[in-house]
Amino acid sequence: MVKIGILGYGNLGRGVEAAIKKNSDMQLVAVYTRRDPAALSINTEGVAVKSTAALDTGKEDIDVLVICGGSATDLPEMTPKYAAMYNVIDSFDTHARVPEHFANVDKASKAAGKIGIISCGWDPGMFSVSRVYAHAVLPDGKDYTFWGKGVSQGHSDAVRRIEGVVDARQYTVPVPAALESVRNGENPTLTTREKHTRECFVVAEEGADLAKIENEIKTMPNYFSDYDTTVTFISAEEMKKNHSGLPHGGSVIYSGESSDGVKHVIEYSLKLDSNPEFTGSVLVAYARAAARLNAEGASGAKTVFDIAPAYLCAQSGEELRAHLL
Amino acid sequence: MVKIGILGYGNLGRGVEAAIKKNSDMQLVAVYTRRDPAALSINTEGVAVKSTAALDTGKEDIDVLVICGGSATDLPEMTPKYAAMYNVIDSFDTHARVPEHFANVDKASKAAGKIGIISCGWDPGMFSVSRVYAHAVLPDGKDYTFWGKGVSQGHSDAVRRIEGVVDARQYTVPVPAALESVRNGENPTLTTREKHTRECFVVAEEGADLAKIENEIKTMPNYFSDYDTTVTFISAEEMKKNHSGLPHGGSVIYSGESSDGVKHVIEYSLKLDSNPEFTGSVLVAYARAAARLNAEGASGAKTVFDIAPAYLCAQSGEELRAHLL
Repeated sequence: MVKIGILGYGNLGRGVEAAIKKNSDMQLVAVYTRRDPAALSINTEGVAVKSTAALDTGKEDIDVLVICGGSATDLPEMTPKYAAMYNVIDSFDTHARVPEHFANVDKASKAAGKIGIISCGWDPGMFSVSRVYAHAVLPDGKDYTFWGKGVSQGHSDAVRRIEGVVDARQYTVPVPAALESVRNGENPTLTTREKHTRECFVVAEEGADLAKIENEIKTMPNYFSDYDTTVTFISAEEMKKNHSGLPHGGSVIYSGESSDGVKHVIEYSLKLDSNPEFTGSVLVAYARAAARLNAEGASGAKTVFDIAPAYLCAQSGEELRAHLL
Repeated sequence: MVKIGILGYGNLGRGVEAAIKKNSDMQLVAVYTRRDPAALSINTEGVAVKSTAALDTGKEDIDVLVICGGSATDLPEMTPKYAAMYNVIDSFDTHARVPEHFANVDKASKAAGKIGIISCGWDPGMFSVSRVYAHAVLPDGKDYTFWGKGVSQGHSDAVRRIEGVVDARQYTVPVPAALESVRNGENPTLTTREKHTRECFVVAEEGADLAKIENEIKTMPNYFSDYDTTVTFISAEEMKKNHSGLPHGGSVIYSGESSDGVKHVIEYSLKLDSNPEFTGSVLVAYARAAARLNAEGASGAKTVFDIAPAYLCAQSGEELRAHLL
């Protein structure tokens, strides 16, 4: 059994917890929280809930610590810190800061003789893997990534921070004409606006100035101003009934040539009922790899690019070759 | 530069040759043939064409030998033979005999301190990789593979062997309703007939009994009798004009749950202008991996499951993390 600790019990932590139940060789042994452990009730019976202070001893009996924190401030600090004591894995997704984060985790985990896997989920994660395989096989080509239709939690949060907004859900939606052109291997040049639209569903305070809220959303820099955005005001009941899930998905589409005029289109796509549960499932598969790699004596920071697919599976090489090759 | 030798100069050998030209770190140094080398003209200037006898010395100056032979009789003999002397790679695709082939190549390449990669292409190959990632991430699920629309060379050959047939091309076509059901995550149970149809285009000899040919095709065991098959007789000119390419493709679709009722659908699909050129492109990417793994001191048989994606790419780990993660 691979003994797993989860650090952080939000949507993603619960996604990891759910995924562990689907893997008979994995065992959740503890959830670590910065909140009061006594006040936290989790979905798995018989599993300890502890303060993160327990981790600081470096003595917790876990094979891999899955760190479920935010990329902005939590992970840059937490992952290197715990990589110095445990095999760790995170879903760090701030692309621009990956080199720095990788270097910090690499230094800590190498010194400790542990494995630290960073940026694991679906993007970065499975989408990154798809991009690398496609570029490797057809170096003369171009990749496109489309997200959605799905809920962007960051954009939903941004709308929620607007005055007069009680609740909000933002869906990112690929533009069908752009998808079609890319799927046809036309290698179009696409602006941000041509690739995705944004649909916002908003519950406003009674008496709020709806036109003002709509304008604030549509003109918000970085988040919305470069997109065609629609805003629909709904009731709290409708929000709960129709928008309580966190579905997501998208496609990596690669179009390349093997010789002049001989084209190939590769597409990897995901339709996910729950973004955090799928991300948690990816983390659990790579946690298995972290434990195995470390048992073989490997150490240091890794990404999905550095790990052979067989390490992710509970089955033996013989079984994989017999049934999945 | 990774120095490549190609053994066998049919469609696949020419596909490998084309792919090498798209990889600036790879160099074709020789083509080996069982035919008379003097009678073989290849598409790359300045490259030696040699008899396979030259390989038997074990002294050829190549980093990897790409073996482009048939799975029925060539590869079971050739790959272990040359694995005892060189790093080798093949596209062995007889699923039932993979364990035996793997064992034979493993023994020879381990003894020689070389790498032998077997069953590399798109199925087995990239499709196998997709199946393993999906099963690893969502162990509670099911995979479906659809092939086509594309030319099956084995089925085309089977039709050509019928008396009165001058030329034939067979397309494998997925049944749209089956594809749709699987994409919707319905996890249907599908018979062979429900998954694919087969379309045959046939040039018959003048005066041949067309009804008899059509009946022979449709009732041919293993190849056609389990499928809904259509037969269309065409002229030699139409065959040349509309059916001279070898396009193919297909999809691996995986549907699984991360917790009760929470579903995810993963799809990997290919649309290929040329089956042999794409297969050749995959072989070249894995040939790079074979050279690197061997340079690191690794030996023995490997499949796509055993090789981390980063090994396939010319770029460094830093470059991959910066641009593709």
